[in-house]
Amino acid sequence: MSVPENQNQNQNQNMNQNPNEHTTVTAPGDLLERTRAFIRDVVIPAEPEPGTSVDSAVLARLQAEARDAGVYAPHAPAEYGGQGLSIAAWSPVFQAAGYSPIGPSALGCMAPDEGNAHMLEKIASPAQKKAYLAPLVRGDVRSAFAMTEPHPGAGSDPEALLTTATAVDGGWRIDGDKRFISGARGAGFFIVMARTEHGATMFLVDADNPGLTLGRDIHTIDRAIAGGHSYVHFDDCRVGDDAVLGAPHEGFRYAQVRLGPARLTHCMRWLGLARRSLDIALDRAESRELFGARLRDLGLAQGLIADSVIDIETSDAIITATAEALERDPREGARLSSIAKVHCSEAIFRVIDRSMQLCGGDGVSSDLPLASYLDEVRPFRIYDGANETHRWAISRRASSTRRRELADVGAIERPEA
Amino acid sequence: MSVPENQNQNQNQNMNQNPNEHTTVTAPGDLLERTRAFIRDVVIPAEPEPGTSVDSAVLARLQAEARDAGVYAPHAPAEYGGQGLSIAAWSPVFQAAGYSPIGPSALGCMAPDEGNAHMLEKIASPAQKKAYLAPLVRGDVRSAFAMTEPHPGAGSDPEALLTTATAVDGGWRIDGDKRFISGARGAGFFIVMARTEHGATMFLVDADNPGLTLGRDIHTIDRAIAGGHSYVHFDDCRVGDDAVLGAPHEGFRYAQVRLGPARLTHCMRWLGLARRSLDIALDRAESRELFGARLRDLGLAQGLIADSVIDIETSDAIITATAEALERDPREGARLSSIAKVHCSEAIFRVIDRSMQLCGGDGVSSDLPLASYLDEVRPFRIYDGANETHRWAISRRASSTRRRELADVGAIERPEA
Amino acid sequence: MSVPENQNQNQNQNMNQNPNEHTTVTAPGDLLERTRAFIRDVVIPAEPEPGTSVDSAVLARLQAEARDAGVYAPHAPAEYGGQGLSIAAWSPVFQAAGYSPIGPSALGCMAPDEGNAHMLEKIASPAQKKAYLAPLVRGDVRSAFAMTEPHPGAGSDPEALLTTATAVDGGWRIDGDKRFISGARGAGFFIVMARTEHGATMFLVDADNPGLTLGRDIHTIDRAIAGGHSYVHFDDCRVGDDAVLGAPHEGFRYAQVRLGPARLTHCMRWLGLARRSLDIALDRAESRELFGARLRDLGLAQGLIADSVIDIETSDAIITATAEALERDPREGARLSSIAKVHCSEAIFRVIDRSMQLCGGDGVSSDLPLASYLDEVRPFRIYDGANETHRWAISRRASSTRRRELADVGAIERPEA
Amino acid sequence: MSVPENQNQNQNQNMNQNPNEHTTVTAPGDLLERTRAFIRDVVIPAEPEPGTSVDSAVLARLQAEARDAGVYAPHAPAEYGGQGLSIAAWSPVFQAAGYSPIGPSALGCMAPDEGNAHMLEKIASPAQKKAYLAPLVRGDVRSAFAMTEPHPGAGSDPEALLTTATAVDGGWRIDGDKRFISGARGAGFFIVMARTEHGATMFLVDADNPGLTLGRDIHTIDRAIAGGHSYVHFDDCRVGDDAVLGAPHEGFRYAQVRLGPARLTHCMRWLGLARRSLDIALDRAESRELFGARLRDLGLAQGLIADSVIDIETSDAIITATAEALERDPREGARLSSIAKVHCSEAIFRVIDRSMQLCGGDGVSSDLPLASYLDEVRPFRIYDGANETHRWAISRRASSTRRRELADVGAIERPEA
Repeated sequence: MSVPENQNQNQNQNMNQNPNEHTTVTAPGDLLERTRAFIRDVVIPAEPEPGTSVDSAVLARLQAEARDAGVYAPHAPAEYGGQGLSIAAWSPVFQAAGYSPIGPSALGCMAPDEGNAHMLEKIASPAQKKAYLAPLVRGDVRSAFAMTEPHPGAGSDPEALLTTATAVDGGWRIDGDKRFISGARGAGFFIVMARTEHGATMFLVDADNPGLTLGRDIHTIDRAIAGGHSYVHFDDCRVGDDAVLGAPHEGFRYAQVRLGPARLTHCMRWLGLARRSLDIALDRAESRELFGARLRDLGLAQGLIADSVIDIETSDAIITATAEALERDPREGARLSSIAKVHCSEAIFRVIDRSMQLCGGDGVSSDLPLASYLDEVRPFRIYDGANETHRWAISRRASSTRRRELADVGAIERPEA
Repeated sequence: MSVPENQNQNQNQNMNQNPNEHTTVTAPGDLLERTRAFIRDVVIPAEPEPGTSVDSAVLARLQAEARDAGVYAPHAPAEYGGQGLSIAAWSPVFQAAGYSPIGPSALGCMAPDEGNAHMLEKIASPAQKKAYLAPLVRGDVRSAFAMTEPHPGAGSDPEALLTTATAVDGGWRIDGDKRFISGARGAGFFIVMARTEHGATMFLVDADNPGLTLGRDIHTIDRAIAGGHSYVHFDDCRVGDDAVLGAPHEGFRYAQVRLGPARLTHCMRWLGLARRSLDIALDRAESRELFGARLRDLGLAQGLIADSVIDIETSDAIITATAEALERDPREGARLSSIAKVHCSEAIFRVIDRSMQLCGGDGVSSDLPLASYLDEVRPFRIYDGANETHRWAISRRASSTRRRELADVGAIERPEA
Repeated sequence: MSVPENQNQNQNQNMNQNPNEHTTVTAPGDLLERTRAFIRDVVIPAEPEPGTSVDSAVLARLQAEARDAGVYAPHAPAEYGGQGLSIAAWSPVFQAAGYSPIGPSALGCMAPDEGNAHMLEKIASPAQKKAYLAPLVRGDVRSAFAMTEPHPGAGSDPEALLTTATAVDGGWRIDGDKRFISGARGAGFFIVMARTEHGATMFLVDADNPGLTLGRDIHTIDRAIAGGHSYVHFDDCRVGDDAVLGAPHEGFRYAQVRLGPARLTHCMRWLGLARRSLDIALDRAESRELFGARLRDLGLAQGLIADSVIDIETSDAIITATAEALERDPREGARLSSIAKVHCSEAIFRVIDRSMQLCGGDGVSSDLPLASYLDEVRPFRIYDGANETHRWAISRRASSTRRRELADVGAIERPEA
Repeated sequence: MSVPENQNQNQNQNMNQNPNEHTTVTAPGDLLERTRAFIRDVVIPAEPEPGTSVDSAVLARLQAEARDAGVYAPHAPAEYGGQGLSIAAWSPVFQAAGYSPIGPSALGCMAPDEGNAHMLEKIASPAQKKAYLAPLVRGDVRSAFAMTEPHPGAGSDPEALLTTATAVDGGWRIDGDKRFISGARGAGFFIVMARTEHGATMFLVDADNPGLTLGRDIHTIDRAIAGGHSYVHFDDCRVGDDAVLGAPHEGFRYAQVRLGPARLTHCMRWLGLARRSLDIALDRAESRELFGARLRDLGLAQGLIADSVIDIETSDAIITATAEALERDPREGARLSSIAKVHCSEAIFRVIDRSMQLCGGDGVSSDLPLASYLDEVRPFRIYDGANETHRWAISRRASSTRRRELADVGAIERPEA
């Protein structure tokens, strides 16, 4: 999960991303209200103690209720049981889901399944959709995306990919080690990225494939992703040609299909958690008195609150702009998704951190869930490409775009004689 | 100009803001391209030396050419000679104008005239529009907005308004002192805010009214607003009933009509200047070598560039979100305009400041225009309501909104036993 | 523990703080080297897994070895078994101790015992020193400082103290509730702050006093303070006159004696942990390659490293300046200790946070201890007075100091005509 | 002046920096009080309008009065007419001087003369001291330091030095171009850095040398350095062997002698200006009311004030630590001077910027001097080595120091199995 980065901007991304292929079966406005109500009335009362994971039976019940309430899988095609929203309509609904740390799991729109479903919808064959996408959307199986590798393999630099897939009689043989594979433990299948003769190829590998073994789990401070983050080893792992996802040798390009939206849905979900944190702090600021005034009327508290509102609204705005771009112009969407990822991951962290500060000693205790929320979002500045890697890519793109502009119209700045 | 603040959120803002009353005569996309070309090919070559003001004859020529090129007054109604864009379409065009520090003046969309025109369009009578709006849009006169007063009058707190207007036979008598009135010197008329029996009222006062005198100019570090920032004194200043702008006693409410969009167009224009600054820095980073590498390939320079791109894109996104809200829901638009003002004014300042840093010694010299750009945007963190005042208002709104939510649905957080 | 704040600047702090009363038995330079060696060779190999507490038997062994090595209790008077350093010499030694999260406990200079020992040394009677200070320095007992109360009692505002002590025949009766009492569970005695007829008084209360009961523990994200943070209840708790610490009714003044240095020793210890974190990140940056370069040679990593070095050195410098002031001029020392507390607590947090970022996915996992270090220091921005409360006090002091200066010499600024 | 950077840490800096060679003729404490009084009573009343330079006749009068008052040239040896302070005692006196933007010039301790005097004292021959240092300290001549060159010559990277000095019969011939030479216009002599056969050599060149011509001035936003920043051209410029400053080929090493302290005295002087700015803001906060409260009692204003106090005190502390190191251990002093330069230049800028914000519209006008102060200090983030270059050097030093530590004691961290 950690650091695959979007460096292949020059490739043509001609995946079918026509928003019309979504049939919007529910008015987003109505779905949004219903989702908010479901989170408030059903999910939040079922939340586990701060810092602990939700019980699997409770989660299964919540998912069943979500299906009944018509709020399950907002992002997935209606024909597979989802709510059929196009990307540009996801943000408010995903934020509503993320208002509870277990909301995205309860609504079937948690990473990595949500991103895997999106990619399957875009590039899987009809048979693959039937075999993998349908049960995934139904919540019958979980999935994992196996790209990141131990150093010095694919990490922040996906081009360093070391896992190989060799064409063998009737299929492929996969060998290599993966690491930090989110959701691995308990997953029904893996989408595996492997180096092939020309570039990279993605494969669908069932969890019970004898050539696939799970290694140790890496214990991280976040808890919301079921199945943890594990090592996964491929040793003479045999799959058929029908296991190739999309076309062979297109893996790097497909990775971008997944990564842009996946980064953005992280932003959406965790922005919901930031809103929750600010609400907790606002409630505290309303009820507490200090030095003879309500906390909410003390200027230094107001400064913290205002900065959090600004962080939330600018995050919301850049998410909206990026989601629209992802539908309209995938390359511009990919560019903006890097920017949104960096801004949102840092802004969301600040919002929760300030909320802790507003709540004083309780903010760093398990009497409030804020400290566990901070643990949940801290890794996002590293996962999905470390923010420093994104900054590097953002800067390079800005330089190359400017060079192209100048080549087109001639320099308009002459900084020096 | 400095600090009138939007505190009257509870008043109903039922001004006609139906975007359909604009007849969009030009496809925005086409206007955008033509505006960019005009700035690049006509305006930038005519820019004055850094730190100096544009010659008035040059400006008049540019304005005439802009009218001929069909790019003049993008915001103004087509019937008065503008390009008829609705607010939601302003941003890219205003940014293109602001790419040159003299662009907004050349295109007739500079403060305070642009904001005054917008307000006149919303609330002036047909006769007033003919007498004041038409020549304003044509560029035949300039205008000023007289609200801010010397301490302890209206400043960050508009409710402290001390200038009075008393009903007298056949009209009104205005008395009081104004301060920091942008564009006053050379203005053809003033929109004056005065306390009346019930609240405040706005008046249209001609510059040659014998009861109006200009006081000294306040010299500030910005240069782009023609007419500087002056004291204006009203002493037994008589005007007729037809000088009342809109309805009497609605002044505070009208001020919001002006302030929300006016704040936002400042954001748009100066965001254009931030883009220019980054381009200057990118050109420098492209051409310079340091420690054996191109400056653009040094990580610390890349960090500065990336942070500036992030600042620019988040500013762009919050402007877009705010402009859409201003058309859809004026109260939400006013809320977001505070947030956009704070974020953009700080982000734009940072972008220019980083660009100076990237350009080294030249960045703080008049060999490059960056230092003059910084002077141009620094006051924006104070004008239109100091950012600290906006933060205070943003926090108060967040608290009151949360209280209303809890009253509606009941508390969902119980931070403490 | 949380938020007692230094507001009583106007009181004369005439406690004996003559540094000569310390007999410096070891040359600080030598002690420093021996402390560093002890931490490196003895303590670090005994560290528990990240996020867990040290085993008590291990800790006892480390303390015994520290005594044998002549590095135990660097701050305590030599006559009681400490190393007899004066405050101005503490910083490098406490930083060396804090380089391991269990170092301060192993060396007997952890909060709250260290601050309690310091206060006992300053204000306890000879009999009290013998009964309480001596075993405390020897490590035979632990102690707690009971000042903070449940809302709306003493928290950020110590003047809100609600616990009372009433003079009764032959002694005092204490009633009230305390909260967030660090180290309470397992402590041998408590220093209790209670409201008395004239101000506040401090009492020494044995843990087995039948009027004292421990309530529930508050679970916080930090782990290093043995005994956790508990509620403590006083119900008809009887103590003799000899339980009064120092003079009656001087409690608020004494609290400052404790709080200034206690804040500063937190800065020292955790600055050591920040140095450890940076070292961990430097080692990672040395060993990892990315995009064909060593991580330490990538500019964006270098920016993170440099900012951390700056944070560490400015923290070190303000600690040094504050420690010198605490010896020379307690009021100036108290003023600077607020400033040092805010700067260091934020700088230390940033250093650890950046180190996590430099270590990528491992930085947020338990494969490295960084995430647990962040949990350890995060509360410091709240404990010992929330940073916002300190900012408020810092600002008020700056304003009042400036007023006094102007009263002395007359205004030298005339900002306005 | 811009960006020469300290990269030659590995050279032995065995210059005589024994503080005992200074004869401290005045008790620093007394000198400090007298300097403060002189600035307050004599210099501030003579300050020019904001944004303008002081009249040369006024300056000459102030210098004469400063000599009479025994406060002139606090840094210079007593035998040459200075006050004989050692570096570790400079900071409070230089801050007192810098409290007025013309104070350092009035007291004869302004850049570049002060740094040149310091270097002459360290490495000039007795004859050179008599001919150059004596009149410089007396204020009879001004001087310049000619190191920086046009791109791609010596700038941020001094090793890129292009100006050459060739040994010719009886002396040297200097050829090359310099740029951004502060104080050049009107200087009596130049210290010129030129590439020689083995490294670089420094030369003393009289301003009337026919081989030296001044080029155009670079107009920068700062005003306090008399003589501006100019191009200087050397064309067949002949000097004798006695023009060599110190030993030949030691130029890079000597540059460090100058740069470390010179950076630090900039920090000292401008920290004084930051204190002035905060005082101006405090006076405003005292006198203004807003929303029914004094500005100084509004929390958001208090936050700005507190952050400025923290910036000032941490700057003061790191300056003190660095000055002590420069006397005790020049290499450690050079390391800290980079850190101090980055921290102080950014902190000072923030303090003035916040003060502007606290003063509202007046803060960006010439009614207050704050905007001119900001112009004065902004270049410091670029001069004396751009902060990004220093960050790069700080990071590299941290990495190499850590490598050496590990080589000495063996790795104590094992971040990964």
